[in-house]
Amino acid sequence: MRPWTTSQVQSLGPDGAAPDIRRLAEEVPVALCYDGTTHAVMLASPADLDDFALGFSLTEGIVARPDQIARIERADHDEGIELRIWLAPGLGARLAGRRRRMAGPVGCGLCGVESLAEASRPLPVLPPDGLCLTPPEIAGAMTALSLGQELHGATRAAHAAGFWTRAEGLVALCEDVGRHNALDKLVGRLARMGRDASGGAILLTSRVSIELVQKAVLARAPALIAVSAPTARAVAAADAAELTLIARARGPSFDIHTHARRIAAEEMPHDP
Amino acid sequence: MRPWTTSQVQSLGPDGAAPDIRRLAEEVPVALCYDGTTHAVMLASPADLDDFALGFSLTEGIVARPDQIARIERADHDEGIELRIWLAPGLGARLAGRRRRMAGPVGCGLCGVESLAEASRPLPVLPPDGLCLTPPEIAGAMTALSLGQELHGATRAAHAAGFWTRAEGLVALCEDVGRHNALDKLVGRLARMGRDASGGAILLTSRVSIELVQKAVLARAPALIAVSAPTARAVAAADAAELTLIARARGPSFDIHTHARRIAAEEMPHDP
Repeated sequence: MRPWTTSQVQSLGPDGAAPDIRRLAEEVPVALCYDGTTHAVMLASPADLDDFALGFSLTEGIVARPDQIARIERADHDEGIELRIWLAPGLGARLAGRRRRMAGPVGCGLCGVESLAEASRPLPVLPPDGLCLTPPEIAGAMTALSLGQELHGATRAAHAAGFWTRAEGLVALCEDVGRHNALDKLVGRLARMGRDASGGAILLTSRVSIELVQKAVLARAPALIAVSAPTARAVAAADAAELTLIARARGPSFDIHTHARRIAAEEMPHDP
Repeated sequence: MRPWTTSQVQSLGPDGAAPDIRRLAEEVPVALCYDGTTHAVMLASPADLDDFALGFSLTEGIVARPDQIARIERADHDEGIELRIWLAPGLGARLAGRRRRMAGPVGCGLCGVESLAEASRPLPVLPPDGLCLTPPEIAGAMTALSLGQELHGATRAAHAAGFWTRAEGLVALCEDVGRHNALDKLVGRLARMGRDASGGAILLTSRVSIELVQKAVLARAPALIAVSAPTARAVAAADAAELTLIARARGPSFDIHTHARRIAAEEMPHDP
């Protein structure tokens, strides 16, 4: 399924009205089912769904490693797409335990205080690494991300997540109508390449919420660089996890919110 | 709780690095609990939470009218904020029924096909109305929305939803780090004012996904105007519900995707 379609519009402008054609991003309900039971239904771009199934499983903590998934099947229905994920033997019990602990369950019987406690997922601290980025490298990485946004270029309705290293440049890029899905797809793509995000930077076209920091840390990225601004909670989580968080990265300008030691720039008196 | 905080950054630019201060949007887990049981935990801006509780209840279809909520209490915890919503007598059974039917429940035992079917929420068709907007009115409404974005102006990390009528101009505006939350808050704000969105247009600073169209139609808005582009599914839903969907509204230019009859512009040969 192509992730966009075409549609007629009336385009209004200073010179009046005229019919025109726009490309529209497809948005499809995708059910993520583990061992025969639905875990979540997400609205997503219908592309890179193998990456999505694997990345979602990893960033949601359902599996710790790709080899804990026995197989992934896809079934297309009129109402959407079903991703059937079969876990390695013995992991079903772990998932059932996680289900009972998850935030936001419907009709789970938890009271609000218990649910809030479960929503505050503890994050690991990143291990030491030798990553060091220069400002021109950061600008170049974000330019490469922008140039690779095929779906967004066509539709203006998608976000992208990319992974970049000094030695390789832009290693992978995934797009989706949802910014969280785009990052899940990237993490899955890297896992299918037999690697994680250590040794480089995750790049995002979006704002940075706490959940995007959580996913980046679980993918072991030492740096997260985003086009738009972070929330206070995202900055606090990045600080605690030793993640270098860079935001408002546009052209040669950007803000370093946390752990500036990984940025090789002159005149940096403080490590905020 | 103020919905933003301040934080030090290293600001890098063409002229080198310098310490600077940024305002960061707060992002807080908010548990929505009905009759003592958690329904969802959302990450949200900690402002207008009474509006959020009421609007979420309406746009999620948990209640059909504001008077079906007996009372709303707020409890602040270290981990987040609990909104305790007590339904009018007799509605608890309805909620339990809805819980069993909802999409994306965790550990609900539904298979993927059943979950996908439940995710495709049928939308009502809007009743006939006499709304007619001119292009300068649309441009003026979006300018008013932009000027009212206090949280986004401070933090660059929030979306806004507004309601505008020809007679009154911008009636209400709500902001949130999540674009869906901003619209839920707006719907709740209007309900607390004793009205819905019929007779005017809902304005959004964001892209338009299917869920935003669903919420606008349930709030009875005949028109939805957004700064960015819609998905194909959002356009199809707007078309079916008789909603006028306008996107990429920037300055004097915009696209009319559906039901152009509500726009008073010359040279409009087709109703896409």
